Amino acid sequence: MKVQTRYIHRKTKGICDIHDITKDVENEVATSGIINGTVTVFVPGSTAGITTVEFEPGLKKDLPELFEKLAPTGVTYHHDATWGDGNGFSHVRAALLGASLVVPFNNGTLLLGTWQQIVLIDFDNRARQRKVIAQIMGD
Amino acid sequence: MKVQTRYIHRKTKGICDIHDITKDVENEVATSGIINGTVTVFVPGSTAGITTVEFEPGLKKDLPELFEKLAPTGVTYHHDATWGDGNGFSHVRAALLGASLVVPFNNGTLLLGTWQQIVLIDFDNRARQRKVIAQIMGD
Amino acid sequence: MKVQTRYIHRKTKGICDIHDITKDVENEVATSGIINGTVTVFVPGSTAGITTVEFEPGLKKDLPELFEKLAPTGVTYHHDATWGDGNGFSHVRAALLGASLVVPFNNGTLLLGTWQQIVLIDFDNRARQRKVIAQIMGD
Repeated sequence: MKVQTRYIHRKTKGICDIHDITKDVENEVATSGIINGTVTVFVPGSTAGITTVEFEPGLKKDLPELFEKLAPTGVTYHHDATWGDGNGFSHVRAALLGASLVVPFNNGTLLLGTWQQIVLIDFDNRARQRKVIAQIMGD
Repeated sequence: MKVQTRYIHRKTKGICDIHDITKDVENEVATSGIINGTVTVFVPGSTAGITTVEFEPGLKKDLPELFEKLAPTGVTYHHDATWGDGNGFSHVRAALLGASLVVPFNNGTLLLGTWQQIVLIDFDNRARQRKVIAQIMGD
Repeated sequence: MKVQTRYIHRKTKGICDIHDITKDVENEVATSGIINGTVTVFVPGSTAGITTVEFEPGLKKDLPELFEKLAPTGVTYHHDATWGDGNGFSHVRAALLGASLVVPFNNGTLLLGTWQQIVLIDFDNRARQRKVIAQIMGD
């Protein structure tokens, strides 16, 4: 049984910028020397989240519209009063979506659905340089 | 330390169809030969999700009503323009809820609350045959 | 490769009461004898959830306001008809947020962002004594 910590880097634009990181995660698992197990995909930071979605142009518009409805920009959050950085909407969206996703793999292959991609969503209100963790465990 | 990959099969009806899969997960853990560890419950596919809830008739109506409010059917999603399959609402709901849940266990017993069940929620707009992964890891 | 099950106890007040349990999780990892791996933070019970957030006074108001908007108190849920305990809103909020979070660690240190705290959110409509599981796995 082994543990491998890998890093996936992405430049993001913020305001619900969605990045498909499936190939990155697949590559890290494939080169880890671990055959069966789980990969924990985790984003450090409190204004981004991880989930799965079919990564196609329609949903790349639908998901931002969903989050705009649930936690709109353009209104004042108490967080904005604390720091004055105006990204209260980013924080509550990230807390709602969650920072971790765990994907099982077998014979070196992620057990994802055919149309299911692993995505990083950056909710911040500015461009960021993100470092996503892929913690690979198994035997 | 061992890894076991198990599959749980369910026929679902879609449109927020909720299935209690707790006993299935318990059985897979009990027969895995692994005593202490975690089980990652993961649904392949981009129109279903996994969470926990008290599985009783009231909440089986409340949860669909919540998702109907958050991401309604009967409105047009950009995804529908892409594929014409009319299940944009299913995709955004699934991305919001998440595809993975990780439950710890001890002495072969899941550490769930008394009224807490593991559920598969199928958000698709049609009946599906789902295969849920239970990735069991531990010693 | 080892597994350690640890417990974190918290008295909560309910109605979206948010508790920073980061130091507790860090302490359990530090004293576990496990150097690299993951900690699964899981709350037993169906009226509480786990996520990460920047734990500061503004967001401690913003998150309850978000959940009040998504699944309000003061309306009737089908669950309330089942049990008469009036906490239908608590259950649907908990199911939406999720009961598990998995955080990777390296050299004994959680790979969290600088402003990212692990929080227990109690959605119940009364004070509770919560026992959160920290399932630590790795080598």
